[in-house]
Amino acid sequence: MNQPDPITPPSAAARAAAQEHLDALAVPRGALGRLGELGVWLSAVQDQVPPAVPENVRAVVFAGDHGVAEHAVSAYPREITPMMVRAFVAGTAGVAVLARQHGVALRVLDLAVDDDLDDLEVSAYKVRRGSGAIHLEDALTAEELDRSLEVGATVAAEEIAAGAQLLISGDMGIGNTTPAAALIAASFGLPAELVVGRGTGVDDAGLAHKTAVIAQALARHGENDDPRRTLAALGSADIAASAGFMAAAAEAGVPVVLDGLIAVAAGVMAERLTPGAAAWFVAGHRSTEPAQSLALEKLGLAPVLDLDLRLGEGSGAVAAVPLLRSAARLMNEVARLDAL
Amino acid sequence: MNQPDPITPPSAAARAAAQEHLDALAVPRGALGRLGELGVWLSAVQDQVPPAVPENVRAVVFAGDHGVAEHAVSAYPREITPMMVRAFVAGTAGVAVLARQHGVALRVLDLAVDDDLDDLEVSAYKVRRGSGAIHLEDALTAEELDRSLEVGATVAAEEIAAGAQLLISGDMGIGNTTPAAALIAASFGLPAELVVGRGTGVDDAGLAHKTAVIAQALARHGENDDPRRTLAALGSADIAASAGFMAAAAEAGVPVVLDGLIAVAAGVMAERLTPGAAAWFVAGHRSTEPAQSLALEKLGLAPVLDLDLRLGEGSGAVAAVPLLRSAARLMNEVARLDAL
Repeated sequence: MNQPDPITPPSAAARAAAQEHLDALAVPRGALGRLGELGVWLSAVQDQVPPAVPENVRAVVFAGDHGVAEHAVSAYPREITPMMVRAFVAGTAGVAVLARQHGVALRVLDLAVDDDLDDLEVSAYKVRRGSGAIHLEDALTAEELDRSLEVGATVAAEEIAAGAQLLISGDMGIGNTTPAAALIAASFGLPAELVVGRGTGVDDAGLAHKTAVIAQALARHGENDDPRRTLAALGSADIAASAGFMAAAAEAGVPVVLDGLIAVAAGVMAERLTPGAAAWFVAGHRSTEPAQSLALEKLGLAPVLDLDLRLGEGSGAVAAVPLLRSAARLMNEVARLDAL
Repeated sequence: MNQPDPITPPSAAARAAAQEHLDALAVPRGALGRLGELGVWLSAVQDQVPPAVPENVRAVVFAGDHGVAEHAVSAYPREITPMMVRAFVAGTAGVAVLARQHGVALRVLDLAVDDDLDDLEVSAYKVRRGSGAIHLEDALTAEELDRSLEVGATVAAEEIAAGAQLLISGDMGIGNTTPAAALIAASFGLPAELVVGRGTGVDDAGLAHKTAVIAQALARHGENDDPRRTLAALGSADIAASAGFMAAAAEAGVPVVLDGLIAVAAGVMAERLTPGAAAWFVAGHRSTEPAQSLALEKLGLAPVLDLDLRLGEGSGAVAAVPLLRSAARLMNEVARLDAL
């Protein structure tokens, strides 16, 4: 990977003009709350007042298995991962239902599923079968990391070429909350106890074991400020692809709606790889995973929804799409006070 | 008003069957969070598993002025009320924008606007011009209260006849947070200091004055357990109509999405007039008004959205509609684990 171009921030001028526009609407000052703030943010990222309503929203789910899933960190076996990829393709996974409701284009890509999915045409970008068990070995080699990041960037470019006004990155893979929590811990210097969560439902004994696995992974990684090193050591092919996807979106000036823990971990890595990227992110929802809230706070992002969702897949981000569209519509369609 | 029929509760059998259905979906147990709970609630109120997706959603905004608005409890003059009614009709008010986005049928009715709105055909149900200043006099006579409640019931019947699967009651009227907060205080024995809020933006001095007005109204009302008496003394024609609307919806077994402070105050009065009504209510959003959160807690309702909205008009309830539809769609369209 070459050194990326510096990220251009969203337009400060458009942000200021949008705030003036918002304040001139025929509603009491501040009455639109977060919807008003989101409308201003959309103006800033689009450099346009009022903002266009983001009708073309595109979500990509990066799927992959994780070596740690063989080490009792999840309530589910890794055989669920390929089953769920098939459910995405069939349109019966949760995020597929929500994407259909909101007219969000949905694509699933096999980055590292430990299964043969050739019949589904989702494996063109496959990097490996399962990423390494991060408490014992690196998740990825340096070459695999580069390939994963490039896949993400390539896919982002494809979705932007298809007209994406908002991008969403989802993730599927049994065990994925372990590398995600480890990435957040390593990035912010947090101990395993603070970042660990129950994922899809581990019990108390499972939680203690998962904490130990994350602590072991963090100890193996040691002190290291290089985000590429951290991503290769503690991440996975799917999370690296998601980070590359988000970094490329920010570089291209296309905003991203973050989902739950996995997407936020990828967002943290995107920000570290390409500082300034997070200015192009909005937080779709607050998940029940503690590391997600910790990381959102570090990124300075407040979630739109708080529904105790812990489905992953990009579902919380897709569920927030109608509210982002509401924010844009209100900026366009509410009367200005001087026009009443 | 005759004694209403007892409210039939939502179906416990459908609720149990819906919970079983939810638990059999190919998602981790509990992963759908509030969306799962809302799906179960929709099944219970519809007596149907999985629930139908509520496509036919109908919102009615009850508009009226308040005598207290002449006594410095609002940051805005009462002349804004008829201007906003015109904005509803023109489709440029906030709730009109959101209703258009979500395909929600929207109707505005003048219950007590202190203005001549005859050209708009919104005044067929008008009860009076402005309700009484509640710290000095009753808001309504007993006859006006009856008429207002009956208007609400009639309008609910009309909307149900039009096929409503979900009903929403909004409110418009400068000064309306004062009677709404007073109704909640009187209903739950709370002091004015706990229920008062900044409405559309009163300053510190205004807040102190508004607190005194509410305290004076509560003292004038005294101890009284009769909800009709409380509504006539401290309410308004528009809030009484909203209460009648919600009570009639619950009696007919049609669920209601509550909006902010005014709608929740009306919901509290509907529950007091027709005990059991609140089982048919869901809270659309948490407003910034403290009395709204207090009353939701008393009703045992947790809001779907928390966006610092304080627009009123039914806007927070309409903004929550896509999430209620998501809840129903997930119950219908996510694969069952035994079908994977």
